[in-house]
Amino acid sequence: MKNYFSTHDIQNIQELINQALELKKSNTSLELGKGKTLGLLFFNPSLRTRLSTEKAGKLLGMDVMTMNAGKDGWALEFEDGAIMNSDKAEHIKEAAGVLSQYCDIIGVRAFPELIDRDKDEEEQVLKSFQKYASVPVINLESATGHPLQALTDAITITELKDKPKPKVVLTWAPHTKALPQSVPNSFAEIMQKIDVDFVITNPKGYDLNPKVTGDVKVIHDQEEALKDADFVYVKNWSSYENYGKVLSTEKDWTFNQQKLKHTNNAKVMHCLPVRRNVVIADDVLDSPNAVVLQQAGNRTFAAQAVMKRILENLD
Amino acid sequence: MKNYFSTHDIQNIQELINQALELKKSNTSLELGKGKTLGLLFFNPSLRTRLSTEKAGKLLGMDVMTMNAGKDGWALEFEDGAIMNSDKAEHIKEAAGVLSQYCDIIGVRAFPELIDRDKDEEEQVLKSFQKYASVPVINLESATGHPLQALTDAITITELKDKPKPKVVLTWAPHTKALPQSVPNSFAEIMQKIDVDFVITNPKGYDLNPKVTGDVKVIHDQEEALKDADFVYVKNWSSYENYGKVLSTEKDWTFNQQKLKHTNNAKVMHCLPVRRNVVIADDVLDSPNAVVLQQAGNRTFAAQAVMKRILENLD
Amino acid sequence: MKNYFSTHDIQNIQELINQALELKKSNTSLELGKGKTLGLLFFNPSLRTRLSTEKAGKLLGMDVMTMNAGKDGWALEFEDGAIMNSDKAEHIKEAAGVLSQYCDIIGVRAFPELIDRDKDEEEQVLKSFQKYASVPVINLESATGHPLQALTDAITITELKDKPKPKVVLTWAPHTKALPQSVPNSFAEIMQKIDVDFVITNPKGYDLNPKVTGDVKVIHDQEEALKDADFVYVKNWSSYENYGKVLSTEKDWTFNQQKLKHTNNAKVMHCLPVRRNVVIADDVLDSPNAVVLQQAGNRTFAAQAVMKRILENLD
Repeated sequence: MKNYFSTHDIQNIQELINQALELKKSNTSLELGKGKTLGLLFFNPSLRTRLSTEKAGKLLGMDVMTMNAGKDGWALEFEDGAIMNSDKAEHIKEAAGVLSQYCDIIGVRAFPELIDRDKDEEEQVLKSFQKYASVPVINLESATGHPLQALTDAITITELKDKPKPKVVLTWAPHTKALPQSVPNSFAEIMQKIDVDFVITNPKGYDLNPKVTGDVKVIHDQEEALKDADFVYVKNWSSYENYGKVLSTEKDWTFNQQKLKHTNNAKVMHCLPVRRNVVIADDVLDSPNAVVLQQAGNRTFAAQAVMKRILENLD
Repeated sequence: MKNYFSTHDIQNIQELINQALELKKSNTSLELGKGKTLGLLFFNPSLRTRLSTEKAGKLLGMDVMTMNAGKDGWALEFEDGAIMNSDKAEHIKEAAGVLSQYCDIIGVRAFPELIDRDKDEEEQVLKSFQKYASVPVINLESATGHPLQALTDAITITELKDKPKPKVVLTWAPHTKALPQSVPNSFAEIMQKIDVDFVITNPKGYDLNPKVTGDVKVIHDQEEALKDADFVYVKNWSSYENYGKVLSTEKDWTFNQQKLKHTNNAKVMHCLPVRRNVVIADDVLDSPNAVVLQQAGNRTFAAQAVMKRILENLD
Repeated sequence: MKNYFSTHDIQNIQELINQALELKKSNTSLELGKGKTLGLLFFNPSLRTRLSTEKAGKLLGMDVMTMNAGKDGWALEFEDGAIMNSDKAEHIKEAAGVLSQYCDIIGVRAFPELIDRDKDEEEQVLKSFQKYASVPVINLESATGHPLQALTDAITITELKDKPKPKVVLTWAPHTKALPQSVPNSFAEIMQKIDVDFVITNPKGYDLNPKVTGDVKVIHDQEEALKDADFVYVKNWSSYENYGKVLSTEKDWTFNQQKLKHTNNAKVMHCLPVRRNVVIADDVLDSPNAVVLQQAGNRTFAAQAVMKRILENLD
């Protein structure tokens, strides 16, 4: 593995999942990262990604340096050929080049603006870092994907499934704000790569990018979709068609015990942070069906498995 | 020791003080924390607590991850059953649960609002972390207590005393802002647990919570109280009765050389930061009587002793 | 070396440069810093200095603690004898004294205000830290100097020169904002200490402090100055005479390919961040003549060499 920009960068998904589960069991420092530095750059807030990736780096023996971009450092210019007489003091060419002098792996988080779909899909920030950095770049959630979360999710399902091919349902849920499609995109991507029966359900107008969902069945009737589900992944996202818009609050899509009854006593997943009683009701989150903390814990091992792979490919 | 929420969590105070003084002498890495992670979460500014606790963690061999809550991560909801459609993106249940996935000990700082006494005394933030975290939680200063500071103070007095039972006076001093009672509360608590002759002096209207001061003598005449003191702990706090209020600036309570003359050439302590010439005059702070830097230095060993105890009790 | 406040603190510059270049080759952990703590305090933004100094500390085996002053901690009072009833909660005497309890080396960054020249030249922040800290203090860029950058620059020239005494030209370039003279000051200082033919060129009104430039030739005709240059250091600074002012934008001083033609195919240096097409044109920055990334990479080894020297002198 050279970079980890999307789940498509994984060669053998099952092998990587097994690797992560082994790392989870034997929490030994691997010496692989000794003398190597991991740099994490956040253009947006982060709790789980920040801490789990820092921890994964340290478990691999790396030194970790974390920065809040823009706040701790300088505002960045991404446009090629720009005459830099605005408030942006540093060009991505230099920033990425310089970080490559100090770091052996760079992680970057950069959310979409959710205004201009074409612009967001260009993934300017992440792609610029990949272009101008001379070291591997990891996606810590970009405009259109969150591949470390998706790998975590695949690990969690692998760990918890009690049949060879479980039914996994990704269901839309309401939210007060317009959220990116990054998490559901990467989840839909990786579910197509492991052995599950995968279904997406969302209200009309909330269909994800068809290039991402491909042949996956999309059902607009939540109850029908949930039938016999072994895993339910609950997540809000804003409209893709009517880009970045919240079409309606669709309160009746909140995931609660009554919805859970349609499933096969499903494990309930969410990437967190989750707005209780808006996205998922207390009666589900506080029940044994919720596996969101175990899922969050697996973030460490997903990051560790990916960076182990990258470190092995260095030199 | 499981958690360190208040000085009442210390079983054998003298043993813990001696432990800290030993750690101060032999500054060797203890390997006890190897592969373990300390997470520090600050809802308020911090200099000493942040650096000394980070350092203590590293001296114990732990990895340390520090976060400014709210700024680096997400705004937290603490109310049970809340319908989370406001600006708070994450519930304490998940936040504490998730941090427990990445950290082996969690430290939390959360100051009081000083508006509603009952609400502050509920200690919602710290208590919620203790309730929902599955790992030990350390109080890095909460609404009503600052037990790491108190342990530091007991260590410093033990280290500096030249008689078996010194006289220790906690004196109120003026300040421009309304400050919490957390530091004097914990200091009053711990002074009742070690072998000292302990007296509190403050203007009328500034008596601390009687549940905390118990049988301790409270004298409203500063000069009388200071007589023959071996240690003077100077500190401002806002009114407890007239909760969170600054009753008057009481300029004549500033601690200066003239006040020092009433004491037995006392060592002068303060938890810092100290406003010079408001709380304590330059003529005292710049004199050999001031031991505030040595006191601040002991923060490291207090934190180290507490976390050593907690690490020994893990598993 | 006790402190590193300016390049004048270096005893034997050539020896220190060679030391840095050796450290660059053999990137082995030196154990010298084991159990020692480096504290970095930033009053202003930083990317390169933050990361390279953190990295250098870790390569020497030190623990590193980084703080954004004022944001993470308390606002500091620097005036002697101040009655601290304003918004400044902590005096530098305590802050520096306390940091000395937790850190074995302290690094401080504090930019000038560019309003009052005498005040900036007092270097109150750095000098106060040196005065009140009981451990060595490193200048991470102060009002009038940036000596870690200057050492880096001397290292880079030593590494890249192909003749015993190359011609080095420091040329002023335009910028949208008023910038400090710290970088050109320290560069001019250190160029007078190594074996180069050094020339400064800037528009009239932008002459640097004559105490710093001493006998160095200052030429106001850029084209004439650039003739046969082996190295060109491009940098903007605000006026010293008309202190802190931007006299004019002087667009024709932007360094581009056409200017480069006057030189001896010079290597082009800049401390970064650089505003493209304002300070230096894309056609130079994207050409093989630009050595800015290699230069930035050398920041690590400059910091490592300086702190190695300081650690060797401890005790």
